[in-house]
Formats: sequence, C-alpha cells, structure tokens
Amino acid sequence: MPVLRHRLFGLRELVDDLAFRAPARLAVTVFACVIVLFAALLLTPFATADGRGASLVDALFTAVSAVCVTGLVVQDTATYWSAWGQVVILAGIKVGGFGIMTVASLLGMIVSRKIGLTQKLLTASETKTSRLGDVGSLVRVIIITATTLELSIALLLFPRFVVIENNVGTAAWHALFYGISAFNNAGFVPTVEGLTPHVGDWTLVLPLVLGVFVGALGFPVILNIQRAWPRPGQRWRGWTKKLSLHSKLTIVTSVVLLVVGALLLLVLEWSNPRTFGPLGLGDKVLASLFAGVMPRSGGFSTVDIGAMHESSWLIQDALMFVGGGSASTAGGIKVTTLAVMLLAIVAEARGDRDIEAFGRRIPRDVLRLSIAVVFTGASIVLVSCVALLQVTHLGLSQVLFEVLSAFATVGLTTGITQDLPDAGKYILALLMFVGRTGAVTVVAVLALRDRRRIVRFPEERPIIG
Amino acid sequence: MPVLRHRLFGLRELVDDLAFRAPARLAVTVFACVIVLFAALLLTPFATADGRGASLVDALFTAVSAVCVTGLVVQDTATYWSAWGQVVILAGIKVGGFGIMTVASLLGMIVSRKIGLTQKLLTASETKTSRLGDVGSLVRVIIITATTLELSIALLLFPRFVVIENNVGTAAWHALFYGISAFNNAGFVPTVEGLTPHVGDWTLVLPLVLGVFVGALGFPVILNIQRAWPRPGQRWRGWTKKLSLHSKLTIVTSVVLLVVGALLLLVLEWSNPRTFGPLGLGDKVLASLFAGVMPRSGGFSTVDIGAMHESSWLIQDALMFVGGGSASTAGGIKVTTLAVMLLAIVAEARGDRDIEAFGRRIPRDVLRLSIAVVFTGASIVLVSCVALLQVTHLGLSQVLFEVLSAFATVGLTTGITQDLPDAGKYILALLMFVGRTGAVTVVAVLALRDRRRIVRFPEERPIIG
Ligand SMILES: [K+]
Ligand SMILES: [K+]
Repeated sequence: MPVLRHRLFGLRELVDDLAFRAPARLAVTVFACVIVLFAALLLTPFATADGRGASLVDALFTAVSAVCVTGLVVQDTATYWSAWGQVVILAGIKVGGFGIMTVASLLGMIVSRKIGLTQKLLTASETKTSRLGDVGSLVRVIIITATTLELSIALLLFPRFVVIENNVGTAAWHALFYGISAFNNAGFVPTVEGLTPHVGDWTLVLPLVLGVFVGALGFPVILNIQRAWPRPGQRWRGWTKKLSLHSKLTIVTSVVLLVVGALLLLVLEWSNPRTFGPLGLGDKVLASLFAGVMPRSGGFSTVDIGAMHESSWLIQDALMFVGGGSASTAGGIKVTTLAVMLLAIVAEARGDRDIEAFGRRIPRDVLRLSIAVVFTGASIVLVSCVALLQVTHLGLSQVLFEVLSAFATVGLTTGITQDLPDAGKYILALLMFVGRTGAVTVVAVLALRDRRRIVRFPEERPIIG
Repeated sequence: MPVLRHRLFGLRELVDDLAFRAPARLAVTVFACVIVLFAALLLTPFATADGRGASLVDALFTAVSAVCVTGLVVQDTATYWSAWGQVVILAGIKVGGFGIMTVASLLGMIVSRKIGLTQKLLTASETKTSRLGDVGSLVRVIIITATTLELSIALLLFPRFVVIENNVGTAAWHALFYGISAFNNAGFVPTVEGLTPHVGDWTLVLPLVLGVFVGALGFPVILNIQRAWPRPGQRWRGWTKKLSLHSKLTIVTSVVLLVVGALLLLVLEWSNPRTFGPLGLGDKVLASLFAGVMPRSGGFSTVDIGAMHESSWLIQDALMFVGGGSASTAGGIKVTTLAVMLLAIVAEARGDRDIEAFGRRIPRDVLRLSIAVVFTGASIVLVSCVALLQVTHLGLSQVLFEVLSAFATVGLTTGITQDLPDAGKYILALLMFVGRTGAVTVVAVLALRDRRRIVRFPEERPIIG
C-alpha cells in the first residue's frame, strides 16, 4: 500500500502542478484528444448498422456530442449506429461526463485561485467550499458517486423497461443507457421513437427528471449534500445549515427555474393540439415538468419540440442559456452566475453595501467574474447565430434554439440538426466544444497576466443607463 | 431682473426638490401626460389627410412614437396625416426630445445620488461630471444648444432639398423636419418614399448621419465638448484632456460601434441583390455607414431593412440593444453601460484590482448599476418577445427586431408594424414608453429604501461559470 500511495501522490502532484500552471490549456487539450479518439472509433465501418462506416463530419459531430454530453444527433442513435457504435457513444458519455465533473471541479478551484484578485482569492480558497484539493481522492469519490447514482436511476427504470421491451437483456441495456445518459445530462436515447410514446408514464418520466436534476446540480453540491446528510442516529434538524453558500444558491435557483419554466411552458402549450393539447391534466403537468427541467441541460423530450409555439422556444432559450450548476455535466452560464447577478441587482435596488445571500456576504470580485462569463457566453451565441444564419436558410427562432442547445450542451432541437449543411454541423460541433470547455476556461485563457498596480488612478464616475 | 431671477430660482428649487424626492415618478408622470395630450391632438378629425380622424390605437401609437422619439409608424407619416397632423408629430418629437434630454440629465444626476451606496455617491456627485445641478440654466442651455444643432442640420440639408423638391417652401419644411428628426433620433420621415431613393446621395446622407450621431452622444457629452472646445486664441493641443471620463467613454464606444457595425453590415449585405448588391463601391460604403449608425437609434433607412439577411438583422439587434449615450434621445442600455461591462471583463482577465479607463478608476458600484440596467433591459425584451409572438403569427427574427426597435426607441422595422393586430400595437407602445423612461428609472423606482447594515455578514464564495 505505501507504494501505491506514493504513486498516487506522484500522479496527484503532477496533475495538480499541470492544472495549476495552465488549467485551461490542460482541460482543452484533454477534451480535444478524447474527442479525436472517439471520432476515430466511430469511423470504423462496423460502428454503423449497415457496416459501411460513417462520414467524417457525422463521426466527429457524434463524438463531440457524446463526449461533451450534448445529445444533438445528425444520425439516429438507435438505427444508424450498430450495437458497437452505441457502446462507443455510451462510453463517450461516461468518459466525457466524468472528465467534465473532474476537470470542472479542479478548474473551479484553480481558476478561482488564479483569476482576478489573486491574493484575496488565495485566502478564500482556504475555506470549505474550495477545499477539493486532494486530486486522487476527488477522482475516486467522483467515480464512485457518479456510478452509484447512474445505477440507481437505471434500477428505477429497469422494471418499466422489462414490461415495455418484454426482454430482460434489452430492458437492462436501455435502463443502463438512459441512467447514464440522464445523470450525465447527455440527452442521447437508445430507442427509435425516443420518449415521445411515454409522455404520461411517470415510472419513466420521474426517474429521468430526478437523474437529470441531480446530475445538473454539479459535483461540488452533490458532495456537499452527501457530507451534510445526517448519519444514522444524528438529528435531522438544521442539517441544511451545514450546506455551503454555493450549494444553497445552486439548489434554490435550480428549483425556482424548474418551477417557473414548467409553469410557463404549461400555460403556453396548454391548448397546442400538437403538444400538450391532447393530454389529460395529469399528463400535462408531467409533460411540463419534464419540459421544464430538460433545457438545463438534460436534452430528452417527451413532446415534439418542433411543434411547440415560438414563444415556448424562447422560454427554453432563456433556460438553456442559464444551464445548470457549476462543475456539473450541464452547460450554460450556470445557475450561480444568474443568482449572483440577481442578488447584485437586489442589493443595488435596496441600497445595500454588500451582495448578500443566506446570511453570507458574496465577495465583490465574484460579480466581475459573473459578468465576464455572461458576456462571453452571449457573444459566442451571437456570433454563432450570425454564422449559422449565413450558411443556412433557416429562421432566427430555430437557429437560436439550436445554437443555445449546442452552446449549453442541452441536445434539444426543433428538428433541424440532421438537415444542416456540413458547415453548419462543424459550427455546432465547435460550439459544443467551446460551450463544454466553458466560459470560465475562456476567461482563464485570458488570465495569463496577473498585474498589480501600486499606484491607483483617481476615481471618476460615468453615467449609466 | 432680480424678480425674474427670484422666480426662476423658485421654479428651480421646486423642480429640484420634486426631482430629488421622486425622480422616477416625476419623469414617468410627465411623459404619460405629454403623450395623452399629443394623442388627443392626433385624434382630431383634421389631423388626418382624409379628415375622418384616426383610430384611438393609431393616434396613441403615433403619439407615443413621436414623444418617445422612436419613429415606428402604423400609418404613413407623409400621406395618412394632414399638414396639421405632421406639425403635431414634429412638435411631439421636439417636446419629447427636449424632455428626454432634460429629465434624463436630471435623473442621471439624481439617481446616481440616490441609488446604491448613497454616501459614496453624494461625494462623487460633487465632481465635474455630475454638476448639472442648476436646473434653470440647464434647461436654457439645452433649448439653445438643441435648436442650434437642429437648425444647422436643416441648413446643411436645405440646398439639396431645393433641388429635389423644386420648391423653396416644401424644401424648407422637409429640411426642418429631417433636421429635428435626425438630432432627436426620432426616425420620422415627412416624404412618402423616405430616404430609399437617396441611398447614394452624400449631401443628404452625411448631414443625417452627423445629426443622428451627435444627438445620440447625449447632452452631458455635448455640453462637455462645448466647454472643452478651445476658444479663439487658445491652444488646440491637449484640449481632449479636459473631457470627462463619461464623454471619452461615450465617444470612443460610439465610434467603435459605428465602425464595427458598418463593416459587418457591409460584408453581410455586400452581394444581396435587394439591398447593397446593385450599388457601386462608394454607395455601398455610404449605405453601410448609414445602416451602421441608425440602429443607435436614428431609425432612418436608405435600404429596405426587410430585404436584408436575417444575420444582418441580428447585428442590428445587438446594436439597437446597446443604443446611444446616456441622457441622450437614443435608447437602449447605453454605450457607457456596455463600456463599463467590457472594462470590467478586461480588468478581470488582467487580474487588475480596479476597473480603469483613460487613467481613471471607475467606482465598483457603477458595475452593479450597469448589471441592473442590462438585466432589466434583457428581461423586458424577453417578456415582450414572448407576448408579441403569442399575439401574432410572426417569426422570432422579425419580432425580436421590432421589440428591440421599440425598446431602444430606434424606429427601424422589417415591415411588420402596420400589419400588427391592435394588441401588438399596444405592446409596442408600452414598450416604447418603458424603453424611453428608461431602465435606470425602473431601478430608481425600486430604490425607495436605502438600508445600511451595521453588521456585515461573513464572506463566502460561490463557484461561477
Ligand atoms: K445534454
Ligand atoms: K428613433
């Protein structure tokens, strides 16, 4: 054991060192290499059902979509790819999801050490939230926790799939695929018709909603809940007080977004004959709950997104842009970023000196980082929309939906993905990659210099608004 | 003179007092009353060319559009309204433009005194930028400056209109209308075909571009330039150093947006047979310059906006959202708001402690106000888009363009305004009103309480991005 411990420590040192010196470059390089590997695997002839092999653009797009846990597909997962191809895709999701949680957890820690007010942050990183420093044990905990949660969802889904498929083997494969796909917010489906036939089936819908929601909280939150959760014999009262500010912000914002999103979609689609219209009251609620959680960023759908009103698309656009929790498999600008902006506005309107939440004061430089993330994200989306509008003849509503779906690695679509020209597929693939490696990484790349001025300039106030 | 001086001082005291106690309510009330007055004038039967009078929704929409200097029209200005109706519209523009510059200048000063970190701001308001406190002289200076600039533009346009109209009276009327419309960024045109036939006519295009650009800088900047401008005999060297940070930020950001916007539109529309395609090189440049400055927020057009690519619409959407200078007749979130956000991101990426520009440090609470303005603006646009999508059968691209045009009081349209259902017209009218009275006002309304905590909470850092 001492030898293993020593080797683990050496690896840990190496990764920690590399990650600290150039975290962004490390993350981007690792992801690019993994994607190339999986694209190569999908290019093998026996990866497709017809044995003739996929085109380069389709293999690359699918590899990016799997490793970046997006779920946008240019070829139907269930019919185009062979069993081997589907295993490759599922492996891509597992590797990608694990990589994202690990790298993002590390990056979250390291970037907050490096970016901006370094000295102040170094002190802050000594606090509980950021103490994920032990790389070796972090990796182990992530693997165990993620696999346990994936298998739990698969187990919840399994009995229903036995009834549907009437075959234990197929049922187990589908349950496992959906379990991994849900927890990793991957959005890939192994069945031809997807989930549309099961819109009112709560034995399928609820485990998937739960899996996607928990996966989108992000690993720091899951770990934090795990630690705060009362052990047998401990008192339940006040256990939530042990949660970090980050966990509380993430959970509360996620729940609010879920409820608001579901309610808005329920109202807007209530009488749409092609979506919620024909459903009974219970099924309507179930379908809106499902549609409310999936934009952040599960990517499954039980109703045809393409048949929804454009106003519903716009609601989902907003939800997709926000995305899920930090260091989760969900994309977007992240819920804490939104929360910090909202809290800043509340503080501004109240005339408070500090941005406050749950009896804690949020450091001012966090706001600057939030703005950088939102602004970078919005700029990427804008440029991508212009580019995609140029290479296609589609309207803005569909293009914006597709761009946000790729940027936030959601995987929902109004149905245009498969018919895009190759240029459009490459744009989306690049966008998934950029969206996945994250706006924070973009900022981290910029944060090479760490200047400190001794002399401060005199203060002067511009007029705003 | 002492009596007049005393009475002026009394008025000044009253307005200052009212404006300080409830600036937002004052601005909103005054604007609403002025709009109702002008709507009533436009409802008179002889305000329309056919003498049968306008409908309530058309009169109200036109009054809002004129007083809020937007330029969106549901009825053709040149043919539907009588000469008297056109005079009412022009008066609405003049009153609205003057009111906006005055109230916004006052609000800019008072809100920055009241919102947020009151004590810090009170000190800051003693500095040069915010010292517009003398209401009486401010009003006088604004009237004289605005009228002088409007007449200058009219004079520049007059010779060309004499040639076009072949009638001195009509030429003078059109030159005056365009002069006032341009400086106030109103976007109303008194001629049936608008400016489309004059796309390559630099004797018309350049004065209009100049008028819109200067008007969109905002009164604080115009006043600042006026004061810094070297008197006869003074040296020119280094006169720009006398400009305030606000002026420098506004001018530089405006120029950058103009150049970038014009270049992007030039590239995207270069070969569009229905817009820039048939034009020669010189005309192409002139047309792109015109199209680049008008989204912030002149509202004139020399080419058919409806015939442009959707990607060009998106570029203009972004420019419209940003808008013009603070306390100007231009709408949007304002160029300084964008500049502060960008500078914050640069500071974040560089690892600087302070947000800096032109050798000045920008106070941190300015960033919080910027975020509030941007977030409020984006939320209003999002809600309006959903509402307009619900009441029409239009696509997002046209709806978003129209909503941003109304919100930022730009007045450009893809051609859908006249065919909107009444509900759509009311939504746009409300949006123009909200956009005009400004995101800052929304924040000011919220800023009723001015709490100061003595006890500060302990600091804790959430993960961002
Ligand atoms: K996804
Ligand atoms: K305008």
